[in-house]
This record gives sequence, C-alpha cells and structure tokens, in this order.
Amino acid sequence: MITSKDNSQLKTLRKLQQRKHRDKLGLVVAEGEDLVDAATAAGLEPEIKLVAGQDVEPALLDAVSALGSGTRVIAVFAQRWSEPAGDTSVYLHGVHDPGNVGTIIRSAHALADGPVILGPDCADPWSPKAVRASMGSVFARPPARAAFADLDATTIALDRGVGKPLADIDVDGPVVLCLGGEREGLPPAITNTADVQAHIPINPDGPDSLNVAMAATVALYERARMARDG
Amino acid sequence: MITSKDNSQLKTLRKLQQRKHRDKLGLVVAEGEDLVDAATAAGLEPEIKLVAGQDVEPALLDAVSALGSGTRVIAVFAQRWSEPAGDTSVYLHGVHDPGNVGTIIRSAHALADGPVILGPDCADPWSPKAVRASMGSVFARPPARAAFADLDATTIALDRGVGKPLADIDVDGPVVLCLGGEREGLPPAITNTADVQAHIPINPDGPDSLNVAMAATVALYERARMARDG
Repeated sequence: MITSKDNSQLKTLRKLQQRKHRDKLGLVVAEGEDLVDAATAAGLEPEIKLVAGQDVEPALLDAVSALGSGTRVIAVFAQRWSEPAGDTSVYLHGVHDPGNVGTIIRSAHALADGPVILGPDCADPWSPKAVRASMGSVFARPPARAAFADLDATTIALDRGVGKPLADIDVDGPVVLCLGGEREGLPPAITNTADVQAHIPINPDGPDSLNVAMAATVALYERARMARDG
Repeated sequence: MITSKDNSQLKTLRKLQQRKHRDKLGLVVAEGEDLVDAATAAGLEPEIKLVAGQDVEPALLDAVSALGSGTRVIAVFAQRWSEPAGDTSVYLHGVHDPGNVGTIIRSAHALADGPVILGPDCADPWSPKAVRASMGSVFARPPARAAFADLDATTIALDRGVGKPLADIDVDGPVVLCLGGEREGLPPAITNTADVQAHIPINPDGPDSLNVAMAATVALYERARMARDG
C-alpha cells in the first residue's frame, strides 16, 4: 500500500498531467473503471494500475487525479496511434479543445470505419479531458497523425457557406472529412486545395456555426446515411 | 470604479454562481464580450454590466468570474423562457451536463425552428457552462419548460436500438425529438408512450452510444435534411 506522495508511481502520474511528459514518455492516464476497462478491452496492458484503498491511500490517489475527486482507479497505458485508413475518416486542423477532439474520436468510432487524423495545432487526444470525452474510443480506435498534403483519399473541406450541402455531394471511394478549429475554420489553403468543398446547412437567423464536434458528427452521420440509403 | 469586494453588484454576481439564487432571482450572468453582445442582440438590457478597468478593478472582476481569469466584461440579464413551439423541437429528460444542454440549445438554434424543452432533472440552461456552450443561442432562442405529457406535437423517442432509424421515420407536422441523459437514456415510460420510437444507427463494434449532444444534433440535422430533400 502506497502511503507517501513521494512514491515513484505517483510522481509519474503527476508528470503525466502535462502534455510534454505524455509526449516524451508516450503514455496516457485512464481515470475511473469505465476508461480503464475500455483500454483493457482494446488489448492494452497497464504499465501502472492503482486501486484506491488497495494499492494506494485514497487521498493520495485523489491528489494525482486530473478529473476531480473520488477516483477509485487510475491506470497508465502506452499511447497507441494508427495510420490514416478506412472509407470514412476525419482530419482536424487547429481543433484546440480537448473535449471536442475526444468527442469527435467517439463519434468516428460510432459512425465511421476510419480514425480521426490530427493535423497541426490540435489538442492532445491523450489529455485527461480528451480521453474522458472519447469515453474510451481513443483506445478502441486510436487517432492518426498526418499532414493534409499526405491524405490519400478524396478530401472534403467542410466549412461555413462553402460549396454544396454535404448531402448533395456524390463521391465514391474513401473520403476524409476535413474540419478546422471552432472560430477560425479551415485555413483557406486547405479549403481551396481540397478535392471537394461542402457545408452543413444551418438557419440564416441561427448562430454563426455549429460547434466543431457537432459539425464533424453530423458529417460522419451524413456519409454513413448516404452509404446506407444510397 | 468599484474597488471593494463588498460592493453589492459583486455580491450579486457571486450569488449567481449558485443555481438556487439564479432560480430565485430569475437572472443569468454573461461573461465576455461575445456572450454579452449575444444577449444585447437578442434585445435584452443588462441589469448589471461591469467592464474591467472602467467600472471595476480587473482583479475584483476576475474574482467573481465563474469561467476563469481574464474576463473583461460581465453582465447580468433577466432569464427569458419560451413556450414549446415550432415544427421541430427537442425535449430533454435528465440531461445533467450543462455543456450538453448548452450545446443542444446552440444546435437547435442552428438547425430547427423550435426551442429546447427541458423536462425533469436537466442542468440549468442559465449556468455559466451552459450559457457558454450555447454561444449565446440561449438568449436568441430561449429554452422552454414542460412535462412530457403536455407536449403538443408528434413525440419521437430517440434511444439506442429502439424503433427504426430516424431517417426512415416518415412523420408530417410538428415533431418533438425526445432524448434522455447520457447513461440512462429515456425512462421506459417515455419511450413507450411516445408516438414514435427511433434510433440513430451506429457501428455494432463502436461505442455503446453517441454523446447526447451529438445524438440530438444528428437528429435535428436529419429532420432538417428530410424537410429539405423530401
């Protein structure tokens, strides 16, 4: 039973709250039974696993939790990345919010066969908030990393008011749905270079845009519906 | 210039961080220029408006911010509620997360003509997190409150694995899309009493479900698409 905050495993957990250490060590922290179970179900073996009251004093485990008190189990796993693949995937550019990145990973797992591909300036998919928002899908469907120029499929740039409604886009073969950050949208260089430009129609008297996680989910849904309904 | 934390306006702002005071006073706090502008654009007049460095010392304004430091303006407005209406609206039951409630309010504003109708056990749409997630849509399209039994339109219960895919549901006239909380889904009494049962198809080897804000947004999108494409 760990009874000192100077324990080396607790030190590692504290370090892993920072992206630079997660990047360097290639590790991710899963907090709570659901996320630990999701990682294990995806075939990962924990490098560290601490159960409150069994391996560690509960207050010491709480103190290294990034998501708040009452965590009964925290485990550390190796980060796993995949390669761009599948008939439908999502490419994100400048999506800074970890909750949005995690949510889109969950939606892609639910609605598509390809991974979320992270371009520049995206939130770390292995951050505590992203892992939680993914509800464990980050383990089952690991994200990929690639530059836009290296995407090997029909690229569909999704942005406000560009091109046709996505439901009217008739493209066969693998596609990558490309979305930019919440405020900025995609850089014009990407929108203009993409094979297809499309938008999700919204009310003219509504908000300026949908949240990026909503837009990505709607786009994934629309492609799945078109594949199903023809 | 306010220079004391005992100022009565600052006291009111501190109180309004708690739902019981928001409910009692019927007030909502908007933090930041974007949200204050959204409320003003919706025709609301601030009851209190404090600009850092002009009306109040910046550190004192920061201290009453619910969303973090660096807020340049905070204003207080009267809560505004609407009645159930429109061809498409959303009814939520037991959606506890304020970010999800706010996001769904934004999506309904973008994709539908009716409000989000809050049933029992939902997060306060006037909480700081919900207001921020709504990106101001909570002012432009105020939420409604109603019991499920009082809904006066075709009710479509959306839940995992029930009924047909939503895209296959052919219903004319006003509809209310009904969704339950993240884990529990809708109570069986509502699912079974609703006029129609439907689901959003997801991968069998994917996650158990979509996030409730994603599911609501996809459903709103699908209804709008069907209305447009026939």
